[in-house]
Amino acid sequence: MKTEPGCPLCSDTGGELVWRDDRLRVILADEPLYPGFTRVVWNAHVAELSDLVDADRARLLDALVRVERVMREVLSPAKINLASLGNQVPHLHWHLIARWPDDAHFPAPVWAATDPKRVAAAAPRRDAIIEHLPAYREALRQAFA
Amino acid sequence: MKTEPGCPLCSDTGGELVWRDDRLRVILADEPLYPGFTRVVWNAHVAELSDLVDADRARLLDALVRVERVMREVLSPAKINLASLGNQVPHLHWHLIARWPDDAHFPAPVWAATDPKRVAAAAPRRDAIIEHLPAYREALRQAFA
Repeated sequence: MKTEPGCPLCSDTGGELVWRDDRLRVILADEPLYPGFTRVVWNAHVAELSDLVDADRARLLDALVRVERVMREVLSPAKINLASLGNQVPHLHWHLIARWPDDAHFPAPVWAATDPKRVAAAAPRRDAIIEHLPAYREALRQAFA
Repeated sequence: MKTEPGCPLCSDTGGELVWRDDRLRVILADEPLYPGFTRVVWNAHVAELSDLVDADRARLLDALVRVERVMREVLSPAKINLASLGNQVPHLHWHLIARWPDDAHFPAPVWAATDPKRVAAAAPRRDAIIEHLPAYREALRQAFA
């Protein structure tokens, strides 16, 4: 498997490991404003989606959809946000973020400027998600079993 | 085809139309800081990727990869950013953004706070992209022909 010296997603899991196989892994990210923030990380060091051969791309898409379905079923968000950016860590990884009108940035992307008042006001939403995290983890594992 | 009253992506193209078929369209977005910013819009009013049946999802993925490949070949960016957010317009659409170290936000996402000094300094990069837009449009059309 291709690895890159110095790449944090080659040397580390990148978060709490929920599931992995030889091609990809599903992790819970450490994003305090967004509990449940999930990443699907391609294990090999590849920069772009179009670097994958067709079968691998289909496998990745399938994993994204599995996570998205569990997120919707267990967390019931208003919207799902998906993104593959990788400007800082050009190792293919996808962000899956459950969004609600009362979260810290809605309807702006989670990468928009942070307003401390919005962050404070979003505490009840974060608490509600945290309560569902054990069920979310378990449902994710079942979805990939 | 499912449409939603009041949805701007149901009532309008959403940008400069480059290509469309019965399922999806490719548009050049009006994003002054990011010339070449491209969107793939699902024509029917659907909120989430996981709302699509398998064949439609595969078709959408194929379109994203076609655009990404053209973007890489013609514009040679340092990184491609892909995202499906839809918090403001919950009608499935994907952002494809070519990124360079000398653009207005790199390595931050394009949705991060904007620094006027960075925006001014990024003018040569924008000009360079604009110069390649005719070739980019043409290569997109060929990729979908």
